[in-house]
Amino acid sequence: MEFRYSDKTLGMRPSIIRELLKQMSDPQLISFAGGNPAADSFPAGEIRSFSDRLLAEDPVGMLQYSVTEGYGPLREACRAFADRKWPVVKGADEVVITSGSQQVIEFMAKLLCNEGDVVAVEEPAFLGAYNSIRSFGAVLRGVPLEPDGVDLNALEAAFAAEPRPKFFYCIPNFQNPTGYTTSEEKRKAIYRLAVKYGVPVLEDDPYGALRICGEDVPPIKHFDECGAVVYAGSFSKILCPGMRLAFCAGQKDFITKLVTAKQGSDVHTNVWAQRVCERILTQTDMNAHIARLQAIYRDKANYMMEKIDEELAGAVSYVRPEGGMFLWAKLPAEVPTAAFVQRCLEKKLAVVPGSAFYTDSGVDQPFVRLNFSTPTKEQIDRGVAIMADVLDELTKPL
Amino acid sequence: MEFRYSDKTLGMRPSIIRELLKQMSDPQLISFAGGNPAADSFPAGEIRSFSDRLLAEDPVGMLQYSVTEGYGPLREACRAFADRKWPVVKGADEVVITSGSQQVIEFMAKLLCNEGDVVAVEEPAFLGAYNSIRSFGAVLRGVPLEPDGVDLNALEAAFAAEPRPKFFYCIPNFQNPTGYTTSEEKRKAIYRLAVKYGVPVLEDDPYGALRICGEDVPPIKHFDECGAVVYAGSFSKILCPGMRLAFCAGQKDFITKLVTAKQGSDVHTNVWAQRVCERILTQTDMNAHIARLQAIYRDKANYMMEKIDEELAGAVSYVRPEGGMFLWAKLPAEVPTAAFVQRCLEKKLAVVPGSAFYTDSGVDQPFVRLNFSTPTKEQIDRGVAIMADVLDELTKPL
Repeated sequence: MEFRYSDKTLGMRPSIIRELLKQMSDPQLISFAGGNPAADSFPAGEIRSFSDRLLAEDPVGMLQYSVTEGYGPLREACRAFADRKWPVVKGADEVVITSGSQQVIEFMAKLLCNEGDVVAVEEPAFLGAYNSIRSFGAVLRGVPLEPDGVDLNALEAAFAAEPRPKFFYCIPNFQNPTGYTTSEEKRKAIYRLAVKYGVPVLEDDPYGALRICGEDVPPIKHFDECGAVVYAGSFSKILCPGMRLAFCAGQKDFITKLVTAKQGSDVHTNVWAQRVCERILTQTDMNAHIARLQAIYRDKANYMMEKIDEELAGAVSYVRPEGGMFLWAKLPAEVPTAAFVQRCLEKKLAVVPGSAFYTDSGVDQPFVRLNFSTPTKEQIDRGVAIMADVLDELTKPL
Repeated sequence: MEFRYSDKTLGMRPSIIRELLKQMSDPQLISFAGGNPAADSFPAGEIRSFSDRLLAEDPVGMLQYSVTEGYGPLREACRAFADRKWPVVKGADEVVITSGSQQVIEFMAKLLCNEGDVVAVEEPAFLGAYNSIRSFGAVLRGVPLEPDGVDLNALEAAFAAEPRPKFFYCIPNFQNPTGYTTSEEKRKAIYRLAVKYGVPVLEDDPYGALRICGEDVPPIKHFDECGAVVYAGSFSKILCPGMRLAFCAGQKDFITKLVTAKQGSDVHTNVWAQRVCERILTQTDMNAHIARLQAIYRDKANYMMEKIDEELAGAVSYVRPEGGMFLWAKLPAEVPTAAFVQRCLEKKLAVVPGSAFYTDSGVDQPFVRLNFSTPTKEQIDRGVAIMADVLDELTKPL
């Protein structure tokens, strides 16, 4: 039988990256394409021991239905975690637990967007956010991202245009795919523009704890005095992604509606993950754990940058990221990105073409996104060597 | 800041039942209102031991990102589980893992419904399905449910009406809230009407394994030869709900779109739950486990029915359910349901008014839904005694 799909479904596309990764069953293939946290960053021993103890002590509490808002003590622990450097969750805010921060994006789009509504987004940005927002029939308006944050004039123009965007989506810390960090000044300016034009901000902060150099910058939510900012924090990159655990802080009215949407979507988030996470947040030294993660990522990032500087000097340029998982590498003008990506893949290296992160993915972009969190140093060596070969090949006069 | 919500959000309502249950912090309160499986039905020991072994043997596989479709061996195990009595998953079908079967309803509605589209539903039926379908701006068309399944004339009229429904939602086994089971004849007739009018069926089967008497009836999906039926199976009632684990079988094109929707919603389902469930399905005696559950529920159901027959004889009537978790109790004509529910609550017994399960919940219905899976026998004794007192009070001549 032919199903009669909704209009929004007909516009949906699978994530190019997840489709690419699914085909990578070849164990010889080196991937700079994913966004997986380093496997040795997981607190696997702690997770195992808390899990076992909780399943022994309170099996029914671990396995029975729970409330949609999330396990109360975890909500409290998330609030404390978000506030560990600056006040982030304000007195009038509520915190809820979600099944990954992808779900926060999904619900923000569902709750705010009618079909045809506009959402302003950093461009380039996280493809999974674009896909989720579009899946409700909303239209993306890209605002160019610069190394210190979004272009403020373009942002104001986007906010002032009719129809006015329903919200603005951004990743101020170590953005995906660029690794760029929005400056404190621009964060304040984004907040001021949000208030001026009445456009809420969805501040997605999955990478904030993964700083490898420089000074922490307060979240936009820290400056929020009127409930304009919805803040999404995630445990995918600081504990592990398989748990699917994140949290969201925002004004009470919005969170109440989000909880209703979540009731109808997955009822509540997996309880095992919530209970284990609560123990880790409250009974382990999270600062020491985060320092260990930072050391792992600092080491990997520096290693990849060194290799690129040695082997691709002059050909490939990038802004040094202060954290996160990605390098945004600019290719020489004469090298077509599609051919570069294709030749790398033939030589068993996967990288993501920059165009995947633009609102119009059909236009070629002179960038590739390189992930440094997943590959080993040996894989980084071989991958950068493959990039050097391919660049050589593609820039050689015929 | 005032957020500008979407039209569909303004029509969303929280589940009356979950809101009711949230307020039940009073430990004195007896609840016949929930839908929780019996706590002693959870295979807590097996879950704990598989969990611990898997976290020790393959921590990275348990904690890293995974594919949206779900863990391959679990998908295979779900197919085998669904097919254990009759072929259910057909050769042209795919199976995908979801975060509870609530998510299947959500994605079916999202994938098929534009705002204003019609969805045919059994009436009364599961409130969470109504809420999820409505959250995409779709309009419910209720089809009256009889003790042997939906009224076929009304179903045909609903399918023939313009605009034609995008799909039909039903729970053929031990329905929520009525406990009714659709006969094999009516299942075949539903399938024939679905094909005749081109209206896909979403067959939700969370309770199918919980039969307490009578003979199993093949799922509608068993008769499906053209991909008209999407089948949702759940582990919430046969393993535990806190895991949030279910599966969906349907034609390939639909499942591909569902996977894209899931990418944008929660990326994938919690891996721990998937891995533990796969071990339980493949390495334990599920038939013995299900027989044990059936014994627990048979005992509780029979106990509640006995008590009602003893203490409320003549006043309250119901169709004996052959499985599931619920009795659909009809009150005497002269007793207003709202007053009955209110007086029960004052005497520390929670029951759900029947109107909650109708498309127009504002119209009083002479039914209450009684859950027998959660309360203990002592609680059943006290709860039925409270109902008897309240009926006495409300039927006494003034």
